[in-house]
Order: sequence, then structure tokens, then C-alpha cells
Amino acid sequence: MSSIWGNKIRISLFGESHGPAIGVVIDGLPPGVTLDMAFINAHINRRAPGNYPWSTERKEPDRPEIVSGVYNGKTCGTPLTAIIHNTDTRSSDYSKFNNTPRPGHADLTGRLRYNGANDPRGSGHFSGRITAPLTFAGAICMQILKNRGVSVSARIFEIAGIRDIDRPDLSTPFHIPDVAFPTVDTARGDLMKAAIADASAQEDSVGGIIEALAIGFPAGIGNPIFDKVESRLAAIIMSLPATKGIEFGRGFDVARAMGSQNNDPIYLDNEGRIARRSNHAGGTEGGISNGMPITLRVAFKPASSIARPQETINLETQKADTLEARGRHDPCIVPRAVPVVESAMAIALLDLLE
Amino acid sequence: MSSIWGNKIRISLFGESHGPAIGVVIDGLPPGVTLDMAFINAHINRRAPGNYPWSTERKEPDRPEIVSGVYNGKTCGTPLTAIIHNTDTRSSDYSKFNNTPRPGHADLTGRLRYNGANDPRGSGHFSGRITAPLTFAGAICMQILKNRGVSVSARIFEIAGIRDIDRPDLSTPFHIPDVAFPTVDTARGDLMKAAIADASAQEDSVGGIIEALAIGFPAGIGNPIFDKVESRLAAIIMSLPATKGIEFGRGFDVARAMGSQNNDPIYLDNEGRIARRSNHAGGTEGGISNGMPITLRVAFKPASSIARPQETINLETQKADTLEARGRHDPCIVPRAVPVVESAMAIALLDLLE
Amino acid sequence: MSSIWGNKIRISLFGESHGPAIGVVIDGLPPGVTLDMAFINAHINRRAPGNYPWSTERKEPDRPEIVSGVYNGKTCGTPLTAIIHNTDTRSSDYSKFNNTPRPGHADLTGRLRYNGANDPRGSGHFSGRITAPLTFAGAICMQILKNRGVSVSARIFEIAGIRDIDRPDLSTPFHIPDVAFPTVDTARGDLMKAAIADASAQEDSVGGIIEALAIGFPAGIGNPIFDKVESRLAAIIMSLPATKGIEFGRGFDVARAMGSQNNDPIYLDNEGRIARRSNHAGGTEGGISNGMPITLRVAFKPASSIARPQETINLETQKADTLEARGRHDPCIVPRAVPVVESAMAIALLDLLE
Amino acid sequence: MSSIWGNKIRISLFGESHGPAIGVVIDGLPPGVTLDMAFINAHINRRAPGNYPWSTERKEPDRPEIVSGVYNGKTCGTPLTAIIHNTDTRSSDYSKFNNTPRPGHADLTGRLRYNGANDPRGSGHFSGRITAPLTFAGAICMQILKNRGVSVSARIFEIAGIRDIDRPDLSTPFHIPDVAFPTVDTARGDLMKAAIADASAQEDSVGGIIEALAIGFPAGIGNPIFDKVESRLAAIIMSLPATKGIEFGRGFDVARAMGSQNNDPIYLDNEGRIARRSNHAGGTEGGISNGMPITLRVAFKPASSIARPQETINLETQKADTLEARGRHDPCIVPRAVPVVESAMAIALLDLLE
Repeated sequence: MSSIWGNKIRISLFGESHGPAIGVVIDGLPPGVTLDMAFINAHINRRAPGNYPWSTERKEPDRPEIVSGVYNGKTCGTPLTAIIHNTDTRSSDYSKFNNTPRPGHADLTGRLRYNGANDPRGSGHFSGRITAPLTFAGAICMQILKNRGVSVSARIFEIAGIRDIDRPDLSTPFHIPDVAFPTVDTARGDLMKAAIADASAQEDSVGGIIEALAIGFPAGIGNPIFDKVESRLAAIIMSLPATKGIEFGRGFDVARAMGSQNNDPIYLDNEGRIARRSNHAGGTEGGISNGMPITLRVAFKPASSIARPQETINLETQKADTLEARGRHDPCIVPRAVPVVESAMAIALLDLLE
Repeated sequence: MSSIWGNKIRISLFGESHGPAIGVVIDGLPPGVTLDMAFINAHINRRAPGNYPWSTERKEPDRPEIVSGVYNGKTCGTPLTAIIHNTDTRSSDYSKFNNTPRPGHADLTGRLRYNGANDPRGSGHFSGRITAPLTFAGAICMQILKNRGVSVSARIFEIAGIRDIDRPDLSTPFHIPDVAFPTVDTARGDLMKAAIADASAQEDSVGGIIEALAIGFPAGIGNPIFDKVESRLAAIIMSLPATKGIEFGRGFDVARAMGSQNNDPIYLDNEGRIARRSNHAGGTEGGISNGMPITLRVAFKPASSIARPQETINLETQKADTLEARGRHDPCIVPRAVPVVESAMAIALLDLLE
Repeated sequence: MSSIWGNKIRISLFGESHGPAIGVVIDGLPPGVTLDMAFINAHINRRAPGNYPWSTERKEPDRPEIVSGVYNGKTCGTPLTAIIHNTDTRSSDYSKFNNTPRPGHADLTGRLRYNGANDPRGSGHFSGRITAPLTFAGAICMQILKNRGVSVSARIFEIAGIRDIDRPDLSTPFHIPDVAFPTVDTARGDLMKAAIADASAQEDSVGGIIEALAIGFPAGIGNPIFDKVESRLAAIIMSLPATKGIEFGRGFDVARAMGSQNNDPIYLDNEGRIARRSNHAGGTEGGISNGMPITLRVAFKPASSIARPQETINLETQKADTLEARGRHDPCIVPRAVPVVESAMAIALLDLLE
Repeated sequence: MSSIWGNKIRISLFGESHGPAIGVVIDGLPPGVTLDMAFINAHINRRAPGNYPWSTERKEPDRPEIVSGVYNGKTCGTPLTAIIHNTDTRSSDYSKFNNTPRPGHADLTGRLRYNGANDPRGSGHFSGRITAPLTFAGAICMQILKNRGVSVSARIFEIAGIRDIDRPDLSTPFHIPDVAFPTVDTARGDLMKAAIADASAQEDSVGGIIEALAIGFPAGIGNPIFDKVESRLAAIIMSLPATKGIEFGRGFDVARAMGSQNNDPIYLDNEGRIARRSNHAGGTEGGISNGMPITLRVAFKPASSIARPQETINLETQKADTLEARGRHDPCIVPRAVPVVESAMAIALLDLLE
């Protein structure tokens, strides 16, 4: 396992989906920060499973209990630990997956990796639930960044092939009318919701893309060759469950661009500050921030858990089998992943900034 | 700076484009490996600048001199160091960039990051030249992987909007008729070459996408949460100059897929081995290898260096200025980047495997 | 802060003495190990404060609650987390130390390091209490080492200038008649106890030396230059509170030895195995284990907390002051530190061995 | 191997004693530092083998060639690489050691660790020669510390049981009359020289102790729990060849001290600054610097290489054998190790300070 991430801000995640608790230790936070628990709780609530009509029945309260690193409401500079107790620990639902591995899940690969000893209940340590403490850790980092004038925000960019509108303005955070389903354009959001409902009715799932940006991040941050801004962001975000791709600025579209169109021209703005006329680079040059918004997009696959029957094998009988995963399944994890992406981005940016 | 990468195989890159030398220290190589210098040299020659008609005039021989870690032709287990002496150290060409930063380059951001002390000649440490020792390190890792039955290969997937054909077969390495311009289909390759020549005639540049795959990588490798296969590959590949995105398996296209189509069904093949009917996941589930080919694509922006005039500022006069970067420029770095991507992939995979 | 240690087995310690809880996350444990809770609890109980007549009144039960990483009594391979809730959280005893820093403690240096934000109650994160979760983590490592034929044991070597007898035999673990006061010779132990009682009567404290050894550790382990056996052991052991020195094998006495006496002659034993006639080196050559017992000694200063009046300053009045730390204080931490040293040694050795 | 050390200042050492070259890559140096090559060369010359009458015949010039990371005489902030070419590469002297491993050397353990593939010539990577690039790296760190008001200095504290005099003053660097044999008292130094000459005449060797101190190191530096000042210093110094122990401040003598004598009383000096009346702690409390001089002592064993016959085995014949290592051997490495200890201390302190 490698459940620790970061150079200066280091987070150590732990827990299995149906074990006693999940949580995080955050090492290296600056001392003396008064935690804004309203901000932090609002952020982590956006990830909570009960927020969407199509959510799985499991509704964990997800209240992190802080057991170290905070004194009189302020960070001590010592490791901050938060524990989320698992209240829903029914394991019977998952027992049959032990012998019929679910396609797209870590059932088979995890068995190989841990010699069959890993906790299979609810995907154990591979569960999306482990993003709850990561989101909490990111909420603290977002608050510290906010104190320093850096805002991190994200939105649903695309679900089931339906795209949100282009962001009209380069220099402001996303304006999100409905935080429960974060798109810039609510009409497009409604189309996405309909597509999700449709997938749900078919006992299927849909994937999507999240776009995130950081505004106000100072220029001159990043550590080439290997701790470039993009490298660090890619490392943490490609650790999130179900991610299949990441792109910065113009992203894969650069493959169809000319250099003369793609380079961001440099000019002096009205107040004599160095600026760029465009932001195709997504806020970095040479892996170092240039003061423009840092922008990225992340692709999430459709949830692997679906109720439709799927081809698999039975490990006991060593014969072909069909997985029939009845019950409710989350047909789209993308909306709930928005605060997770924000958190991961905030952790990486604060780690670079410290 | 953070010029060190890896957990078990750790590479430490050094050097400036026009300083005395560039090179790499590779720590943690297994002892007793007889180096196949023909294989290694063939690999690094594919990156050499002189291989393409449109290459910049600079033609460095790029002969790595091994000064430690090898005894009687075998790795010792101690740090293997290779030095490439820079023979072309003219610095006059670059002097003017000091005051007129090039859009898309690290001229401005590097100045901020290193308080103006970084070596500006030929982009210094930010130069693509630093990929030469990385490619050497990767060649050794590729050889070691080959000894263990793992092949790493890559191809040009797209340049200037022109795509190579789909790979016909999931289970074999790329068949590349022309290693000097690695596409599967030479006719598509010719169209790409024409587009590059066209860009060159316009004193402009074009970007592209490289696709890479590893075949034979054993199942059960990868260290969730943060050292997943994808996370490690993304981290090293997004450190390469000019990369703007990475995707695994089906990649960003998952945003338009249904779960029932995207999950790779599990079955037992004729010989009773566990296999998948498709490889949308790109060889991993839950961040751990599943025995299928590991596949990825990387987007490279068009080279920032172009001869066409560009809008910039003059840092001395603090006024608007125009950059006129006369001379020859590489209109497309994608073909030369193919062995670099292979090397980076091999380094990350061997690091995970050890 | 840097509360994370290790390369392959990584422990992440957290908690303040009077906060809600202390604990540890252990990342990288091998999967499938059936935990021997009787062994583990017996080990950690040796560190518990209530075991000695001179102990401070505080008697925490120190029952680690395992909340992740164990399934059906076996390690999962995922992070194993243990939490120890603090039951005695009276903080009034320590309030006055805020203004009159205790000599020898981190009161002043911690204030500087954390800008005054650190938790001062009971030394907060600097408290010796943080060795409880470390001892727990080490108990698991000791058990895993034991499964592989490696025993780790330690004894009180010296307290208040009184030495235990020489170890009669090079190749067996310490024979300790009284685990509550671990010396080889009980008569010498009684003299030490008398010295401790005497110091206690004078409201003073005494220091000492612990000797530890690992038997059965395989030859050929260690990673020069910087992850040598000695280097790793020194790093973790010099992190323990109150340690002031460490030596291996013959230790500082080598300064008075000749090479011809100090080198350990190599010979073939009766069964044809390579052996050494002596073990002045303490089980390593060139930083790599040689199959002989790994031996070390650690010096612990007398506890800084004493009831006698001490010269200090008042930070509020910025004037000279006298610290009168009435109440009971632990006059000698050395006996309780024995299992802590064993644990630290086991963590470092298992980390090297994995 | 693990030839990389450091968190912020990271050094990567490479090279074998009789390979083409040895050297170091230093990552993370602050940019813009004008290197004082006179200072640096004077420091590394103190380590050079030719400085002592009893030195081995091998006299390498040890001129580091800087090939990266310096531009116009200043550090760039990019990795600084220095290469020392080996000029004396006779390997015949060492061939016979292949079959008759030298007691005290890594001949046997290195063979096990690297499966027999390590370079055996002149101890290869285990040679004391690898301390040459480390000393160079440390010289740069010493210069940067000096620029910030921190002086690092060391002296021979004891050789062959003969001690230098006590340091008269707590607050000033060592006054060393003869840098070629750095003791405070030259008469004691002469006695040590006589003991070395005596050992040499007997074809034997002697060990010793080096004392080092850093003055001017700011208070409030150090990262408990695991990156304490002592822990980091112990880790790097116990990586140096032939070290067998390290102690801080009063060191092992604390085992004979009472707390009331050992605690360093806190007072306000004439200028109102917080000070300590003594420095038994050696400049740290709770692992964090307290503004007093940081003091340590390191024990070096007598050189393992001696000309006297020694008992060993023959690995080819698998029989007992006698090693007759004729020729000149260095009877005492302690004087030459003084600048090495200073360098290691400077690297660790700058790494903590950055």
C-alpha cells in the first residue's frame, strides 16, 4: 500500500468501507490556522451520498471527528487526525462478490495484490468511501488557500456526452447556481440529470468530465523536473477512484493546434502587470505557475457497479458465471466527485505553495 | 528543484542545455544485469535531434558515458551514472530571450522561480535536452523489463489532427514499419509528415498525441491509494516537457460511455486463464495491473519555439515588444518524443515492479 | 512536523498528550498476518505508566483500538490504524508551564517552532505518551520478525552509573528474570531501583542506558550509503524522547581499540557456516547485516520533569522566575523505555527487511 | 542502494573507488549563491589522502569538476553536479580480496547484498573515497550556512585513548592551531600523532572520536517527531564509513547525571535575551534547536585495513585462510574524517533550515 501523499503537506489515508472507521492524518499543516468548520462541513457535505435522488441507500452522516492537531480551534502544527466512524457496516451485501469478481472493480486485482487478505466488504480500502477523509483534508487546504487569496472551484463539464457551456470569463471562479449539481448552465445540467435518470432506469451508469480551476495562485511556484505543477496535480488526481484521464489548459486539443495559436501572448495590462492574452497553457509554463488560472479536466468512467447482469467467472468453481448485482446503484458518481476533485487540487497546490 | 523521481528505482537528472554536461544517476537498479548496449544505444538514438529533416541544426552525438555502477559490463547494484557532454555550447543565440521572454517557455516563470539566477541559455535545465539522460535511464529499464517478458512500445497516434489507424490487435506490441517516424500505418504517417512540412514552411509548429503500451506486465502490481499504476505513470509523464494531458485505456471517451459497455467482461480463455473480453480500462482495475496491456495516450502541445513573430514584452524597457525568433526551429517534437514516452513508462513500471 | 517514518513500512504517529486521542497509521504491512494480540498487548503493557512504584499518578489503560487494516484477525495489506483514547485529560496541571518554560522540555523551542500555536498541555505532541502508539506499531513488527525467526530484545544496561552484568553469550536473546525491571542480573537491578528511589526522595531524576539486540536477522540486508542498518536504526531511535546518544557493537569504546583487536575474525564454524569470532561490529559490515546479532546501546537523559525548584524565566513578565513543579514525577523513564527501544528497533529492521 | 539523502537539499552520491569517476548531484540548493571556490577547495583539501605522513600512497588530486547547476559563478537553483575523475585505477592490489574477505570490510556483506555483482576493486562503492563528493557537497552547504551566520567546525576529540583538552568556551567555534591535525591543544595532538606512528609501525590501526559543533544556528528549527535535529544528524553521520556511535551534548554521560544537574537552566542575559546557563543538551530541546551551540561527538573504529595477518576464510576453497594485506595502510582515518563530519553536519543542518 501507499496511502501517504505529499512532500510538505502529507496526508495519510486509512480505512475500509465496512471496517470500524475511515480517516486521515494530515502532517505539515501550518500552525495557528483557525479552522472554519462551517466552510469545511459545507464542503464535505457536497460529497455525502445522500444528496442525490439516485444515490445508493447507504447514507452515512460522514461527520469527521478531529482527535489531534487542533487546540482551541486552531491548528497546532502537529498532525491533524480526523476519524469518520462507519455506521453502516452490513457486510452481507458483498459476500457473493468474493467468488464472482465484479468487472471494473478491484476484486480480482486486489486479491492478487494482497494475497487474498484484503477486506472485500464494500470494496474495502478501494471503496469510494475513502474519498471522504481526502475531501475533508482538502477542505482544510482549500480554507488555507482561501486565506491566501487562492480559490479552488470545479464543475461538471460533461456527463453522458452532454456538455456544460463554455466558461465565459478567464479570471473568475465558476458561478454555480445549484451547488447540489454543479454546472454553470442549469439547462444543460437538467439534460445531464435526465441522462442519469435514464441510465438508472436501465440499471446502467454513465461517466463524465469534471473541470477545475484555481484562481489567484501565485506565479513562480512548481519544482521542475518532477514536481511540476501538472505532475503533482496529475499524481494526486489520477489516484482518485474511477479517473481515466487528466488534461491541463487546452488539453488534448493541443494535438490539433498550431504553435502560433497555442502560445499565450505576453503583454502588460492597464496597470502594468505582466499578463497573457489567452490561457491555453492552463496557468503554467515549464511546469511553473505563471499567475493565470490553473485549469484542468478529469475524466471519470461510468461507475463499475451496475445492476444489469454482467459476464464474469466464479473463482470457486473456476467456471463462467453471471454477476447479477441487484439493488440500487449510483448511476453517476460525477456530481459527488466535484468536491473530491477540488479537494485533491487544493492539497496538491498547498503542498507546492508551502 | 525536484529532479529526483522514483521509490525503488530512483533517477536523478541534472544539467543545463548549454552547460558542460547533462546526465543521470540511477539508484536502485538490480545488480548483475548485463547491459545490452546495442539495444540501449538504438533506443536513445531515436531521440537524437539529427534524425528528422526538419530538425534544428544542433546535432549532438548524445553518447552517454557511464562513469559508475557498471563493472565488467554488468550493473553493480550501486548508482549507475551516465554523463552526456554538451558539445554545442554556443550561447549567443539565446541572449536576447533574456529580455524578451518567449511565450510558452519557462523564460518568465523560471526567472521568478529561481530569482533570476537560472541558466537562460537554451532554456537551461528546462530544455528538452534533459530528456536525453531520461531516455537513457529508460532504455536500461526497458531492457530489464524485456528480460522479464515485458515489452514497452509507443507510436505517433495523432499529429496536426491526422490520426494513425486503430491498433488491430490487443495483445501484441505495435508493429512499426518505419522506426524513424513511428506510426502503424505509413500512409497516415506520410500525411502527418506533410502537415509538419507545411507548418515548417509557415515558420510554425504542430502538436500531437503519442500512444504507448506495455505488454506482459504481470497482474497484481500497483500500490493504492497513491501509488496506483496510473498515478505513477501520470506523475512521470506529466513531468515531460510540452505534455498537456494523459489518458489511460479508453481515456476521456469514458465520459460518453455506459457502464455496461465500459466494464471489461471477465472470462476464462481456452487455456483456462482469467482474461478480459475488452481492455477499456487500459490494463488496470483499482489502480492495480490486471494482466491486460497497459495503455495510455499523451498530448504534446506544438513546440513553443517558432520563427514567426510573437507578441511579448521587453523586461528591460517594461514595454510591449515583438519576439522575432529567426532561424530553424523544430516544427514538431512528437516523433522524437516517442522513445522518451517509452522510457518514462518503463521507468515507472520497473519502479512499481521492483 | 514530520510524524511519518519509513520506506516500506511507514508509520504515521499522531496525537497530543491531553487531546482526544493518540494513535498510529501503519502503511505497508505485509497482508495475511494473523495478529497475536496476546503478544502485542503484553509488549505494550510493559510501557504502561502504572507498572512502577515511582510512576506518575496518571494511569492510562492504553488500549489501542484497531479501526482499519485488519479483517478476520489478519492484516489486509492496507493501512492499519490504532487509536488510543486519552482518558485523563486534566489540563490544569500544566497551565502554569505556559509562562514559565521548563528547562529541558520543548516548552520554549516548541513555542518558537509552531508560532505559539502548539498544544502545551502535558507537552502536547512532545509528550512521552506519543511513544505508546509507536510501541504498538513496533509490537506488530516484532511479531512479524518473530514469525521470520528474528528476535528483538532489550535490557537496562545502566542506570545512575550502576551497570548490569555483561551479557554472557553472543548468540541468544537476553534472559530477563523480571520483565517489569529488565536487567540480566537482579542484584544489579535492585541497586538501580535503590538509586531511583533515592532520586525520587530528593525530588530528582536519573538517566540511563538501554542495550538492545536482534538475533536471527539475515545477512545481506541494508542499503548503503544512506540506508545502512546503523543509519536507519539511529534515525528512528534518536527520534525517541530523551535520547542523547546511540552506539553499535563496541560503540565509543572503539576509540581506544586497535584494528587488529577490533576486526571480527572470519572463520567457518563446525557446520561449515561463515561466522565471526567476535561481534565488535555489532552485526554489520559496511552498513549491511552480517548475520551476527545486531547490537546497540541508547543513552537516555534523566527526566527533565523534576519537583525540585529550577531556574527559569517568566515569559509574561520577562523576568527571572523559579519553576516549582510540585507533585509526583517519574524519577526514571529508562525501565519503561525498554519496550519502546525494542519497538523502534523492530520497525527499522522490518522496514529494511521488506 | 539508497544513495540519496535529504528532504529539501538532496544529495545523490555515486561512484566506485576504481571506476571512471565518483561524484554528487545536489538538488534543491538555493539559487543565486556565488560559490566561494577558495573556501570550498580549502575544505575538501583537508580530506585529501596526501596530507598525512602515514597516508596510503594513493594520492588523488580530488578536483571536483562542476558540470551543472552553476552559471556565471552562481548557483542556478537547478541540480549542481560535481564529478571527480579517478586517476589511480590500479585494481590489481585488490584482486585477492575477492576470495579472502577482509574482516571489518563489506567484502562479504556486499557480496551478499548485490548477489556478487558489486565492484570489489578498492571496496568499490563502499570505499571511503565516496566521502570526497560528500565533503564537496558539504563545503557548499557550509558556505551557505556561513552566509547566514552559522559556523560549523570540528576537531579530533580523542585518538587511541588520548583526549584533547576540554573546550574552554561554549559560544565560539573551535580554535584550531594546526588545521592539518585539528586539535585544540597541540601537545595532546602530538601525543596522538605518536600513537598513530606507533600503530603504523606495528602494521596496525587506531580509532578515535571527533567532536563537532554548529554555532549561530537559529532557535526553533527541527521537525518532531522524526525529523528532529538529532535524528537527522544521526542519520547522515551514521552513514559515514567506520562510524560506530554518535552522541549529542553531554551524550552517554547523561546516564550518570541527575536531572537537576543535567537540565540547562534558563535565564535572561545582560541584553535581555533568553539563554541557558549550560549546554548539556547540545543545543536542542524536544528535538528543536534552542539557539545554543549544537554539539555532537562521533566514534570512528580503527581502520579495518591493516597489514598484519588476519584470520579469514577462502571463499573458493571454502577453507580457513590468512589475509596478509602487505603494503601501506592508513593507520588512522580520524584526522581526515574531521572535514567529512563537518560536511555531513552542514548538509543536515541546511536541509533542516531551508
